[in-house]
Amino acid sequence: MDGRTDSTSTWLGAPLQQLPTPALTLDRATMQSNAERMRERCQALGLRLRPHVKTHKTLEGAELATGGTRRGIVVSTLAEAQFFAAGGFDDILYAYPLPGGRLEECAALAQRLEAFQVLLDSPQALALLRQHPLPPGKRWLVWLKLDCGNSRAGVRPTDPSAMALARAIAEEALEEVMLVGVYAHCGNTYGCRDVQAVQAIARATTSAVLDFVTALRQAGVPCPQASIGSTPSCSHPVPEMAQLTEVHPGNYLLYDLQQTLLGSCHPEEVAIRVLTRVIGHYPHRNQLLLDCGWAALSHHGRDQLPAGCAAIEGHPELRLVGLTQEHGQVEAVDGQLDFGRYPLGSTLALIPFHACATAAMHPVYYVHAEGKVVELWHPVRGW
Amino acid sequence: MDGRTDSTSTWLGAPLQQLPTPALTLDRATMQSNAERMRERCQALGLRLRPHVKTHKTLEGAELATGGTRRGIVVSTLAEAQFFAAGGFDDILYAYPLPGGRLEECAALAQRLEAFQVLLDSPQALALLRQHPLPPGKRWLVWLKLDCGNSRAGVRPTDPSAMALARAIAEEALEEVMLVGVYAHCGNTYGCRDVQAVQAIARATTSAVLDFVTALRQAGVPCPQASIGSTPSCSHPVPEMAQLTEVHPGNYLLYDLQQTLLGSCHPEEVAIRVLTRVIGHYPHRNQLLLDCGWAALSHHGRDQLPAGCAAIEGHPELRLVGLTQEHGQVEAVDGQLDFGRYPLGSTLALIPFHACATAAMHPVYYVHAEGKVVELWHPVRGW
Repeated sequence: MDGRTDSTSTWLGAPLQQLPTPALTLDRATMQSNAERMRERCQALGLRLRPHVKTHKTLEGAELATGGTRRGIVVSTLAEAQFFAAGGFDDILYAYPLPGGRLEECAALAQRLEAFQVLLDSPQALALLRQHPLPPGKRWLVWLKLDCGNSRAGVRPTDPSAMALARAIAEEALEEVMLVGVYAHCGNTYGCRDVQAVQAIARATTSAVLDFVTALRQAGVPCPQASIGSTPSCSHPVPEMAQLTEVHPGNYLLYDLQQTLLGSCHPEEVAIRVLTRVIGHYPHRNQLLLDCGWAALSHHGRDQLPAGCAAIEGHPELRLVGLTQEHGQVEAVDGQLDFGRYPLGSTLALIPFHACATAAMHPVYYVHAEGKVVELWHPVRGW
Repeated sequence: MDGRTDSTSTWLGAPLQQLPTPALTLDRATMQSNAERMRERCQALGLRLRPHVKTHKTLEGAELATGGTRRGIVVSTLAEAQFFAAGGFDDILYAYPLPGGRLEECAALAQRLEAFQVLLDSPQALALLRQHPLPPGKRWLVWLKLDCGNSRAGVRPTDPSAMALARAIAEEALEEVMLVGVYAHCGNTYGCRDVQAVQAIARATTSAVLDFVTALRQAGVPCPQASIGSTPSCSHPVPEMAQLTEVHPGNYLLYDLQQTLLGSCHPEEVAIRVLTRVIGHYPHRNQLLLDCGWAALSHHGRDQLPAGCAAIEGHPELRLVGLTQEHGQVEAVDGQLDFGRYPLGSTLALIPFHACATAAMHPVYYVHAEGKVVELWHPVRGW
């Protein structure tokens, strides 16, 4: 079903420059260092790191992010949950509003794993769990999703229904359901323009979560865990986050152009590239054509000027101005292109705006060290 | 490698409403009718239809589009060429600037198929072919790519280098290389706002191509074929196109919201949907949450207001206002949402802005007839 995946193993050991393009490449040393630094940051705060795997969706990436333990990850689809469970992972939090039609699959995971955990934000979802009790000895492990300003899923912690729902999860059926913790995604950090603004949101989210946990405890409702996440907030954590029990960033393993612009990372910490080749010279319109279109890069960043969908590594004189399915159009930032610098067939490396979106376009990632392909990672997809 | 593909066959025969979501669905009768109508249009003009398969990338879709002959298609990646060749297709035109590093793969296809055809727009690409001659009895079958105003790949037919290159292809090595035809993609039709503007571009492209072919013939250079394409131009062909030999649209098999807005089709001719479920009610911000994010829809159309990334079928009172990886946010066009109309778990069908981009996000397409899944199509991906 995949025209190239079967033959990708022939590229192990090959110099990066020989890869067929477009190719998604990941720098192993950079990912290792990103993983270590995030672990160190969390250790310094006494926080558990529960990496989200939705950016790369690979066993190898999750192994790196968990420091080899294969314990404690977040997924956002059931396909991911099943893939990582089959790959030997456990303590998997399926941090997505519970899908009513797929409770049997959730129950199968709950029985198969030591700790398959689900998330909900409505009494209806709790009722669904109650309609599908697990066998004796197993309880549904439930996180309550809080919306602390991100305005997507979640109950607002200041809404009285939040306390009522937490209490219902914790107390309604002690043998069937357990309230593990509260979970908030501060995705609103992506709207920031600098680290200071990111930290203000991280502080507000932490405070909203902790206030809610305090209120729960005062009301006698046990809530062992409190988790927030997003790569911007966890790349520059505020001290208040030490009062949480865990965090769940994901993108940081690769980082991307967007994270650089947000201040989450330095350019040299971005591990992801799309390798592409020059396939056309068009002097009359002062353009190069690349063999990388939106099918290999995605459209993300298209409306985020001046960044656009990608930067071209080592070539500040170039900018990507257009993408169709399999073509990228490149112009000079100023003046005339020196076409001799970019011969037909020569490679360029694109730094994508949004790693999650670019990774989703590729059946295989070429992981490299010292200029050679050392691993091939195959992501899960679908739902 | 794919968390769900192995088990998708269990959905054959299932009512559409039972599918796990998000799910890409294709209406078989609509596709059949789209395929037939395009064939009829071409027959009426005496044109051969060489369908482009890059929208759906499936054997079944290409079978439908070729009327079961499995002969005469266009692909835009080598992975597609290899996939369709392995699937029994022949007369495959790889309409993409020739990749220098993959000539061996092209040569293998040329030897395997009766007619594997390549495309080029530079003397360097011709030199590459000359460096990789095929075994005796086989010649490289070459189309010259013309840029008739689309400003992507191709030589401009009015540029003297176009004639020189055509002559070189046709005459430089009669035993090794043959000039099959000239090929132009009028992708600039996608910038139009109505059929009249689309037809003006189709007319100009046709005229530019035919003038070039006439000049070639006057210069004694044989050029048997002349092909233009794009779904907008071929959905309402102008009479002048009858003087071409073939056309190569692709999107028309599915159509999409963008094509509706361009006037290429009526809404009922759009075969593609993304089936999604309501997963959250947020009355305080007057929003519904759907289990379809950009991972299932793509970001295409995001900056194309008022269309956006998708319309919601049968619900003109709703609009999709935001997409993150796995979530879609829906608001009322006016006033308050009546949440009772959209219970948690209920399904909605999204009509995507750009079928090519949405299809690229899915490992399987659920093809349906009379409300039930009748076929599962698995697209090729990668390069």
